[in-house]
Amino acid sequence: MGTISEKIFSRASGEQVKADEFVIADVDYAMAHDGTSILAVKSFRDMGVEKVWNPERIVIPFDHLAPANTEITASLQNDIRNWINDQQIEHFYEIGYGVCHQVLPENGFAMPGKLLVGADSHTCTYGAFGSFATGVGATDMAEIFASGKLWFKVPESIKITVDGTLKNHVYAKDLTLYIIGKMGSAGATYKAVEFYGDVIENLSMSGRMTLCNMAIEMGAKTGIVPPDDKTFEYLKNRAVEDYEPVYSDEDAIYSEEYHINADELEPQVAKPHSVDNVANVTDVSGTKVDQVFIGTCTNGRLEDLEVAAEILKGKKVSVRTIIVPASRSTMIEAVNNGTAEILLDAGATFGTPGCGPCLGGHMGVIGEGEVCVSTANRNFKGRMGKGGYIYLASPATAAASAITGEIADPRDI
Amino acid sequence: MGTISEKIFSRASGEQVKADEFVIADVDYAMAHDGTSILAVKSFRDMGVEKVWNPERIVIPFDHLAPANTEITASLQNDIRNWINDQQIEHFYEIGYGVCHQVLPENGFAMPGKLLVGADSHTCTYGAFGSFATGVGATDMAEIFASGKLWFKVPESIKITVDGTLKNHVYAKDLTLYIIGKMGSAGATYKAVEFYGDVIENLSMSGRMTLCNMAIEMGAKTGIVPPDDKTFEYLKNRAVEDYEPVYSDEDAIYSEEYHINADELEPQVAKPHSVDNVANVTDVSGTKVDQVFIGTCTNGRLEDLEVAAEILKGKKVSVRTIIVPASRSTMIEAVNNGTAEILLDAGATFGTPGCGPCLGGHMGVIGEGEVCVSTANRNFKGRMGKGGYIYLASPATAAASAITGEIADPRDI
Repeated sequence: MGTISEKIFSRASGEQVKADEFVIADVDYAMAHDGTSILAVKSFRDMGVEKVWNPERIVIPFDHLAPANTEITASLQNDIRNWINDQQIEHFYEIGYGVCHQVLPENGFAMPGKLLVGADSHTCTYGAFGSFATGVGATDMAEIFASGKLWFKVPESIKITVDGTLKNHVYAKDLTLYIIGKMGSAGATYKAVEFYGDVIENLSMSGRMTLCNMAIEMGAKTGIVPPDDKTFEYLKNRAVEDYEPVYSDEDAIYSEEYHINADELEPQVAKPHSVDNVANVTDVSGTKVDQVFIGTCTNGRLEDLEVAAEILKGKKVSVRTIIVPASRSTMIEAVNNGTAEILLDAGATFGTPGCGPCLGGHMGVIGEGEVCVSTANRNFKGRMGKGGYIYLASPATAAASAITGEIADPRDI
Repeated sequence: MGTISEKIFSRASGEQVKADEFVIADVDYAMAHDGTSILAVKSFRDMGVEKVWNPERIVIPFDHLAPANTEITASLQNDIRNWINDQQIEHFYEIGYGVCHQVLPENGFAMPGKLLVGADSHTCTYGAFGSFATGVGATDMAEIFASGKLWFKVPESIKITVDGTLKNHVYAKDLTLYIIGKMGSAGATYKAVEFYGDVIENLSMSGRMTLCNMAIEMGAKTGIVPPDDKTFEYLKNRAVEDYEPVYSDEDAIYSEEYHINADELEPQVAKPHSVDNVANVTDVSGTKVDQVFIGTCTNGRLEDLEVAAEILKGKKVSVRTIIVPASRSTMIEAVNNGTAEILLDAGATFGTPGCGPCLGGHMGVIGEGEVCVSTANRNFKGRMGKGGYIYLASPATAAASAITGEIADPRDI
């Protein structure tokens, strides 16, 4: 008997382990982006180790300040490029390729049963593929670069079952915001959250990625959706190696179990300045908006852009609206299927695929007192600019708000 | 008898004037962008004037740091938005609409016979439409905001006649770099340069804009192409008001006249760190390149992106390559006609329509020792990042260099 997490850590540590035990585990794939690799590489160099444990198992996308916003960023990125070259790391994705949590799944690194560790909080996204995937600090990443191993406490698991159906203009983002609102930002601290139920099974891979992406926002170590045919289909021509799906046993032990019926769920919004400050969109509709941002590792995929386009088609935005596709592939698809044209015709603009203004580094930072409706995963004070106010929502709610210039219910457009 | 400049200033000042006379002229359209409007508005406020002279004749595109790169930029831009709103200026173009010198022509403000003044050096671009168009400082712009007038010394004119034909992969950009190389950066100081000849007549409006855009780089007050059927066709459904084309008389007096035969012209490159440091591409081919940037008010139009796509089709870039369409319209056209897809498939990435990294503010700043091949108009030391090296070239040369990772002759690809 065991949970998905217990099974993955048993395999990765070479011993049968249970929740709360400490293990040293072999990491299958390690990720650092331009933002965190700078510190990770510095720590790695300080350790005096010459070569990384396995250059084929390290993945480095440049997405956070990409293209570079300043000459200091540019020079730091160059230092990392040189290190990548010296270390013969082939899985390097240049500026403009996309945001890390889209790049790894697209390129088949996120696979069932694998242990993935990234120097980024939202590494938990890959749990959408039945991986155990979690974020660590840059100095822990240096340890992985050197040894391929890291210590973990095997997490307890929480089981959340979501039954019913998502109604019109209610999406994975609304569901995840709703769950975070109920759980609170520390409601699942250091636990693995496994998602089950009709709603989860019916979610696309894109929707599952949105859901797992935000597991960290309730404190979870990761979020996991058990792999199914959709997962295998997605991975068909992508998976970089063989994988073995693992599932929790019938008698697996969960620290908590929750049941949610999604039938009555309405579009949700996380109000400033915490992700668990969640309300129905109707409670905040009418709030004046200065900027709308549709993108990020949470909601910058083709499906998200299509949802926005469905609402914006033939209409005009009344506030500045920035679309940042999660990856170049996403942008190519959006260009090819007419989605990009609809969004541009509506008056939205595009930013370079990557993180965009999510972290407040460039490409759409907001000013004092400004309000941004964002499809990202964090609305902490000052994140997109000091003095700004971020409301997190689905691409549908964001698009609807772009039209009216106020937070708007997509069901009303 | 008179030059185009003398005739425009005679009309705009209400008196028959000749070169070297001083006039107070009525400005037809005044432009300031996000970068310069901040200071222009501050100066305007300091003057104690309440209302601008004519809100319909002021055009403000946000393009330089758009979307905002920092919260300070964002707050400053907001202050300008509020002022624009208070002053009831309707010709305001938000972030993502495009670079100012594309936005004004696209929207029909650049017309034959008009006097346009912009708080930006490359305002001379509009001379492609037979306007007299020139850049001023932000405090001069405040004076125009208040009165609609500015003093000028009517410039002497230089006549440059370009005969022959541009060969394969030799473009307006190569011609303008060649002319600047010959004239030197101060070779036409305070003069108006009129362009004539077969080559100029055969240039598209886009090519003429490239040519006039860089007149300032030889010190000229402006560059002017006499309007013709191509000009009138471009303006057909765009011109915001009636206009009266003016032409230089047969006996107009020029301070200098030059003849160029373009038959033997090769692709040109301006080497660091001055625009008149011009060489044949073959003299610098093989120089290692770190970044390629295709865009700006000089070479970010559809024709430019198409030239790049022609070279990149079915190939892959080997260095990071940033495409910034000159405007949203340009991007829509590039999306619709397959150009964007070719560029993305080749591994290039897109930035938000506007100035992009040209001025080193964001979106692709280069680091210490890095080399960028850029289609922009200035390669001054530190412009795109302290310690960087900028080579100016045509979109064809830039695209060829993106493939090889070295400065490359587009005729060899």
